[in-house]
Amino acid sequence: MSEPRLVEVRKNVLKQNDLCARDLRRRFRDAGITVVSLVSSPGSGKTAFLEQTLTMLQPRHRVAALVGDLATENDAARLARSQAPVKQIVTGTVCHLDAAMVRAAIDFWLPDRLDFLFIENVGNLVCPSAFDLGEHLRLVLLSVTEGEDKPLKYPTIFNTADVAILTKLDLARAVEFDAPLCERNIHIVLPGMRVLKVSAKSGEGMDAWLEMLSSLRAECRATYSG
Amino acid sequence: MSEPRLVEVRKNVLKQNDLCARDLRRRFRDAGITVVSLVSSPGSGKTAFLEQTLTMLQPRHRVAALVGDLATENDAARLARSQAPVKQIVTGTVCHLDAAMVRAAIDFWLPDRLDFLFIENVGNLVCPSAFDLGEHLRLVLLSVTEGEDKPLKYPTIFNTADVAILTKLDLARAVEFDAPLCERNIHIVLPGMRVLKVSAKSGEGMDAWLEMLSSLRAECRATYSG
Repeated sequence: MSEPRLVEVRKNVLKQNDLCARDLRRRFRDAGITVVSLVSSPGSGKTAFLEQTLTMLQPRHRVAALVGDLATENDAARLARSQAPVKQIVTGTVCHLDAAMVRAAIDFWLPDRLDFLFIENVGNLVCPSAFDLGEHLRLVLLSVTEGEDKPLKYPTIFNTADVAILTKLDLARAVEFDAPLCERNIHIVLPGMRVLKVSAKSGEGMDAWLEMLSSLRAECRATYSG
Repeated sequence: MSEPRLVEVRKNVLKQNDLCARDLRRRFRDAGITVVSLVSSPGSGKTAFLEQTLTMLQPRHRVAALVGDLATENDAARLARSQAPVKQIVTGTVCHLDAAMVRAAIDFWLPDRLDFLFIENVGNLVCPSAFDLGEHLRLVLLSVTEGEDKPLKYPTIFNTADVAILTKLDLARAVEFDAPLCERNIHIVLPGMRVLKVSAKSGEGMDAWLEMLSSLRAECRATYSG
């Protein structure tokens, strides 16, 4: 097997990605935008959570979203219901977004005077972890239906994220979800990681999430003007 | 970005994988083993479904399982409760199993006179699709909590599988799962694909699945002796 050569080429790709992400971060800074990315398995509820977030932020902030997907534009259509500008990145067979895809998307599409740009990655708990997208905050979402052991089984995606969001809290009882066990497993992988529990359906936990976003925005603005 | 070079190296890796898978298929034939692989997102219930399958087959068949995982041996420990021989393949940061990993595992571990070998892939709805593991039947599992649109969003993994298994049927009502819509989406991607609906928890649908396995076993035996 030619794995070693593949590993070498991958290293090169990742290095170029880091350079591109650094450039993106500079552009976001110049434009005064706070950027949040979301990773998770397929079906963890990224789109529902993001739709709710966009809807709740809109009265007071200018927001937009980029959405990565292999094949369809379903997610972009769902997010567009929030009235926020949304652009889809169709990745074909590529299992993750990279910084160059984000750059290509915003070169021709970036609404003026944005406060927040959200980037929803392809549903995949493995491959997106390696690719810096120039974001300020990376969320890893985990639904209560997936099982408490996932942080131990997919440690890299938790390690490389900033905040863990436990979604579909409304189903916690039906699946006998053990939240303290799940949080313990998250903290084995990344001690001190901040964990939020939400339900986009019932709205539970969304206020705490919006507060976190406000603090992040204030930090970004202080850094940008500093 | 050096994507074109990466694509070229990947093609080479896949070609070598196909050769290795062909060799595996010959070895499975010589040993008279029927091989079934399972792919799905993290948390779709592969391990619960497989544990139940191993337990139900054991009275009449010799069965064993290989389990791919990035980091932990949790799944192997769960499957071992079925009393079947189980071997873990720890993939590190690799997001899928390939034929060489399967070959390396069975070179030093393959119980005598097996009827069925199950191979549980890493939880990932994208990358495992490209890698032939020498199996006779590939299952793609999708839990009712993940949403009816997943076949359209991850078409390649459905295209490259033989049978779709809708899992966690006991939660269908709680999540308002629309089974006919999901089946329609599966058949848009792969017309005529066989779909089974199961709950490893309640046992619903497991008999139909075991019947399918019996037919597969009979086909394999006919082919092997032919």
